[in-house]
Amino acid sequence: MSDELKKGLEGVLVAESELSFIDGDEGKLVYRGYTIEDLARDASYEEVLYLLWHGDLPTRDELAEFRADMASHREVDDDVLDLVADLANADEDPMAALRTAVSELSAFDGDSDADPTDREANLRKGKRITAKIPTIVAAFTRLRDGDDVVDPREDLDHAANFLYMLNDEEPDDVLADVFDQALVLHADHGLNASTFSAMVTSSTLADVHSAVTSAIGTLSGSLHGGANANVMRMLQEVDESEKDALDWVQDALDRGDRVMGFGHRVYNVKDPRAKILGERSEELGEAAGDTKWYQMSVTIEDYMAEEKGLAPNVDFYSASTYYQMGIPVDIYTPIFAMSRVGGWVGHVLEQFEDNRLIRPRARYVGEEDRDFPSVDER
Amino acid sequence: MSDELKKGLEGVLVAESELSFIDGDEGKLVYRGYTIEDLARDASYEEVLYLLWHGDLPTRDELAEFRADMASHREVDDDVLDLVADLANADEDPMAALRTAVSELSAFDGDSDADPTDREANLRKGKRITAKIPTIVAAFTRLRDGDDVVDPREDLDHAANFLYMLNDEEPDDVLADVFDQALVLHADHGLNASTFSAMVTSSTLADVHSAVTSAIGTLSGSLHGGANANVMRMLQEVDESEKDALDWVQDALDRGDRVMGFGHRVYNVKDPRAKILGERSEELGEAAGDTKWYQMSVTIEDYMAEEKGLAPNVDFYSASTYYQMGIPVDIYTPIFAMSRVGGWVGHVLEQFEDNRLIRPRARYVGEEDRDFPSVDER
Ligand SMILES: CC(C)(COP(=O)(O)OP(=O)(O)OC[C@H]1O[C@@H](n2cnc3c(N)ncnc32)[C@H](O)[C@@H]1OP(=O)(O)O)[C@@H](O)C(=O)NCCC(=O)NCCS
Ligand SMILES: CC(C)(COP(=O)(O)OP(=O)(O)OC[C@H]1O[C@@H](n2cnc3c(N)ncnc32)[C@H](O)[C@@H]1OP(=O)(O)O)[C@@H](O)C(=O)NCCC(=O)NCCS
Repeated sequence: MSDELKKGLEGVLVAESELSFIDGDEGKLVYRGYTIEDLARDASYEEVLYLLWHGDLPTRDELAEFRADMASHREVDDDVLDLVADLANADEDPMAALRTAVSELSAFDGDSDADPTDREANLRKGKRITAKIPTIVAAFTRLRDGDDVVDPREDLDHAANFLYMLNDEEPDDVLADVFDQALVLHADHGLNASTFSAMVTSSTLADVHSAVTSAIGTLSGSLHGGANANVMRMLQEVDESEKDALDWVQDALDRGDRVMGFGHRVYNVKDPRAKILGERSEELGEAAGDTKWYQMSVTIEDYMAEEKGLAPNVDFYSASTYYQMGIPVDIYTPIFAMSRVGGWVGHVLEQFEDNRLIRPRARYVGEEDRDFPSVDER
Repeated sequence: MSDELKKGLEGVLVAESELSFIDGDEGKLVYRGYTIEDLARDASYEEVLYLLWHGDLPTRDELAEFRADMASHREVDDDVLDLVADLANADEDPMAALRTAVSELSAFDGDSDADPTDREANLRKGKRITAKIPTIVAAFTRLRDGDDVVDPREDLDHAANFLYMLNDEEPDDVLADVFDQALVLHADHGLNASTFSAMVTSSTLADVHSAVTSAIGTLSGSLHGGANANVMRMLQEVDESEKDALDWVQDALDRGDRVMGFGHRVYNVKDPRAKILGERSEELGEAAGDTKWYQMSVTIEDYMAEEKGLAPNVDFYSASTYYQMGIPVDIYTPIFAMSRVGGWVGHVLEQFEDNRLIRPRARYVGEEDRDFPSVDER
């Protein structure tokens, strides 16, 4: 046992993985050998899921089968919808609602009695969870807004179907494409905290539902997936303030605040996903005839680079992108989950291929050798 | 970044902690300076909770106030009871049911809007979750057995109240004491996998409910908390087989099976908690006039020590102890959660005192530099 404290596990290698590779100095991200730029341009989210889970891109037939299979699992059980309605009624936080609803899915999963390391059963579970998350998020959002739930459609792709269920309207091709691309960009990212929590959970031979439930909770934090909603709240605050973006961010840094959407444990340069989403944000602004959110973001980006040497991460430009698509701010993080579940499931499958219990140590710095006092001696 | 692979994080120090200390060679366990033997003999579970969360044993007044406060939070919201009923109806696994129900508690927690690092709010949340877990476990167990839910009572201690809710009958002092002692023994154990998963989750600044939900999922695995139920299933299998315990365990090892309840990442000798629970198991057998479960366990223990050099862990003797108390086998792991939540909350409080995102790396061993093929080129 080394006596060095590895708080945050920065740079500690805890697993081997074939799923994704990050070069933090070059700003490079690769899923199974394909660059994120290629995938964002040419692959759909379903193709990326297939790639992550099976190792190769699907042929036309494989893709058609995979898509149809995924689509057939979109509906959720009535009990789950009732739970989602209760949570919407109780004004639950959307990520907490998603965590609870996904946790409940195990009660209705046909493979819930399978051996936890059964790869085929885990693939089926992962597929079902991934197929159902958009249904849960859309239902929750509509119910808490007082709208009726829109049932999923099987004829639409994963991305388009979500927007359809959310808005009760088929999205146009531009919106469906941007959203699909956002899902592709968020699908996997090495051992980020939520993925790692899924691995810690499954390392005890807990099931896939437990692992994904852990990951959703972990993603919700503001240092991780929660950042995308906070970026938008920040942009809205800047917009509503009398200040221009530059003064606003200067004041924030002077107060010692962290600026959401900047910095990353692994990237020392600009996140390649932020580059792509920045382009989308600009295009959506141009199409709407108002690029103010994009402009504001660029001002903040430039200032942060100059003053702090910090570059934007994926959450920085997803915020204004989703905003301009009309998506409610507090479901940005559930949308992150909607995509990252692909990575969670992929890493859990890898974990089970050669499992070892993940069980570190703490350095004890507490009291020693205390005599137990009776209650009257305290 | 070191290139060494730390799979399982064995011996890696990821935090400093004042909560508990394990000497794996001496078989010693200490909570905040007090030996587990002293605590098991003289402290109630509520005193241990107070110790873990506040650093010192409570005075008489502090304890009375803490007890009353905990007891006042035992009831769960009707929506949660409805969910538990749905889960019981769907024949959900008890640990999965607990995970889902605890996750839902956040929707009804008065501090759910508090800053995630607010220590006082987190203590209140932790207290409420801890107070409500027995209610959920008892309600689930009764409902799925077709019985009515028994409401919690405020006049009983934590341990006695659970047995009362479970059986609709006040436990006698012996059973209440044994159960309270079991809760004391399971309350904390360094950075075991479930505790570590709670820390990973909270390291993103996710809330206490997310952290505890992760921990419950992690505890459910058979390499961790799930082992206690599996130990009892093994003992039952031995009992029902024609073989004696010695032949049975020999066969199991010959098949290459892991024998549940043996081995530990940290202990190289007998787990001190197993010693104490072994005594309880023997006493309960003697009181009932039949020590067969205890005898069988001892036979297996001796054989495992001789053949494999492996000693029993806490789960080995908790199994026959709970069994002889008439507790259904599949809620042994929820009972583990009922106790360990004290440690989870304690470690989350410590995590937030000096938080850093827990975000390790994986060594990439996958494909490199692949050109993206169109679907027809695949
Ligand atoms: C992502 C993040 C948690 C990575 O953190 P990390 O690897 O643990 O790095 P640290 O928290 O140790 O930060 C290193 C330094 O950069 C500073 N820093 C990092 N991110 C910052 C930010 N967004 N704004 C201002 N300063 C920041 C820290 O204050 C620290 O400076 P110090 O050493 O003077 O205290 C961190 O950059 C952050 O909090 N970002 C904002 C939240 C966010 O966008 N998260 C989404 C990530 S995809
Ligand atoms: C607790 C446990 C997961 C710790 O595991 P670990 O630190 O990762 O140790 P490993 O799994 O690497 O095991 C080390 C060696 O002991 C053996 N071993 C460990 N526990 C064993 C058991 N219960 N039965 C048989 N062999 C066991 C392993 O097979 C391995 O031998 P090998 O090196 O020849 O393959 C492990 O001991 C175990 O699976 N125990 C049974 C489940 C249990 O009781 N869990 C509750 C813990 S409180």
